Amino acid sequence: MSLNAYLAAAAKKIGIEADEYSEAERTPLRKAASHLLVSGGKRLRPALLMLSADAVRQGAAADVFPAAFGIELLHTYTLVHDDIMDNDSMRRGTPTVHTVYGNTAAILAGDLLYGDAFSYICRAEAAPAAKTAAVQMLSHTCHMLCEGQSLDAAFETRDDVSLEEYLSMVLGKTGSLLAASAGIGSLLAGGTPQQTAALYTLGMNAGIAFQIRDDVLDLTASPDVLGKNRASDLRENKQTIVSIFAREAGVDLSAYHKPDLTEAEISEVISSLENAGVLAKAAAYSEKLIADAKAGLSVFPDSDEKQMLCAIADLFVVRES
Amino acid sequence: MSLNAYLAAAAKKIGIEADEYSEAERTPLRKAASHLLVSGGKRLRPALLMLSADAVRQGAAADVFPAAFGIELLHTYTLVHDDIMDNDSMRRGTPTVHTVYGNTAAILAGDLLYGDAFSYICRAEAAPAAKTAAVQMLSHTCHMLCEGQSLDAAFETRDDVSLEEYLSMVLGKTGSLLAASAGIGSLLAGGTPQQTAALYTLGMNAGIAFQIRDDVLDLTASPDVLGKNRASDLRENKQTIVSIFAREAGVDLSAYHKPDLTEAEISEVISSLENAGVLAKAAAYSEKLIADAKAGLSVFPDSDEKQMLCAIADLFVVRES
Repeated sequence: MSLNAYLAAAAKKIGIEADEYSEAERTPLRKAASHLLVSGGKRLRPALLMLSADAVRQGAAADVFPAAFGIELLHTYTLVHDDIMDNDSMRRGTPTVHTVYGNTAAILAGDLLYGDAFSYICRAEAAPAAKTAAVQMLSHTCHMLCEGQSLDAAFETRDDVSLEEYLSMVLGKTGSLLAASAGIGSLLAGGTPQQTAALYTLGMNAGIAFQIRDDVLDLTASPDVLGKNRASDLRENKQTIVSIFAREAGVDLSAYHKPDLTEAEISEVISSLENAGVLAKAAAYSEKLIADAKAGLSVFPDSDEKQMLCAIADLFVVRES
Repeated sequence: MSLNAYLAAAAKKIGIEADEYSEAERTPLRKAASHLLVSGGKRLRPALLMLSADAVRQGAAADVFPAAFGIELLHTYTLVHDDIMDNDSMRRGTPTVHTVYGNTAAILAGDLLYGDAFSYICRAEAAPAAKTAAVQMLSHTCHMLCEGQSLDAAFETRDDVSLEEYLSMVLGKTGSLLAASAGIGSLLAGGTPQQTAALYTLGMNAGIAFQIRDDVLDLTASPDVLGKNRASDLRENKQTIVSIFAREAGVDLSAYHKPDLTEAEISEVISSLENAGVLAKAAAYSEKLIADAKAGLSVFPDSDEKQMLCAIADLFVVRES
């Protein structure tokens, strides 16, 4: 099976389960909690959980499916609460939960999804000790997610964020849940500690690489591909891998922190950053993360699932435009 | 040991653990999350968890202590988020978390406590299957808490709430976490399904009885004992057991839904409600809940712990003034 076929099948199953979740209880809160959940999304985290389980033991994805859905519930909770905190009005082309239902309902909707996530983890077919380990991994992840989000908020008022601080934030905010998705798939399928660690690292590195590419693409992607204002991070002086490596390389970006950047100015910035090796350094950083993650999969024998895991990791760096 | 001594010892242990929690990580988010946690409180839920464990197996409280602390974390999360939603500025004599740290930090602080609660449940000394059952009970409880809070918010714009709807709300908002405290104590200590069910019911009924007494006391307690404006529920036309039983008895309270109630008017209302048997009916309702809960403890052999459980249940109805 190709990776695309695997991802499509997983997304479809999660979509059906999401519809069932939204219909299971006819309360206003359930409706608010289901709003974003049924609105689509790539379902990448549950797919990674299922694929990791299949890599450990072929066919295990069916046993761990409830946990895959639990991960999607948890991911959705983070989006609902993040949208409140960032006061974002749109996501996936639809109004955000708090925009439609108000802040109180949105806080509670996130809280409902959060608790239900743990319930679904426990519904997987797995040994009790594996479920306990999965719950512990998930709760540790929640802790990292919150700390990552908190760091991200704190960075808004700073312009001296170090690479180490940036990585802490990204590790929590983006890496941890992808890491847990792969790690929980392994735990519940009965993976060895080495297999679980390799898959956890794969998810973690993929998440960090994804954020680094995202930082670069904000500057370099064409506006129609990006679907948003190009160079928004630069305009707002957001702390990204680009701003951090630029500072390290002595490239002064301070003249460009303004809302009305022209295309000419953006091209100018890109040239300076290319000349100083900043963009190449960022690309190399994320490529190394993915290469390390793929090398770590040597604890698995060759299989279709292992190939797909490598391909899924590559997805996070080849998103070129 | 007397119940008071047991409660005091449990509260002290939880307080020490709370201090350790607050010191374990020096991040701004941990500080916000610890703000309310270290500010005291009766620590009744963790004490009930420990006492339930001891009733199942003497000495089990030490094994399940991390879970008792987890329940306190979860309780604290509910208070932090409730305070945001209700926009309350003070709790336990200190400014609320969102008042001190802002809404974003308070949402995240609640989220941090929420996830950490599950981690502490898993740290108890217990069989993996018991931990999984405890996690499932806790996540089910979180679901009920959110639905209860959502119902409570919806009641604010209604004046026709039925007894059944009221009980659904109270069951979720107040009963469920006390039920889970007792139930999880039993599960982790290796209680039989009958013991776990009896303890779960004890917590649930105690919680509902507590809310009913609270509704009555809002009207009848002396202002200095109450520590707040007497008859505030009546002034605001809040849906309580008193307003529901009054409606059923044909007592019209509509003239009293105003902010400037006099003491004479409050006495007048109390007399009408007494004459119509409303207050006696509410008292009888909560007393029956407690009597049923105590009768359910017959699945336990006699012990000091069983006596203390009966006494703890009584605490919820004898809070006379």
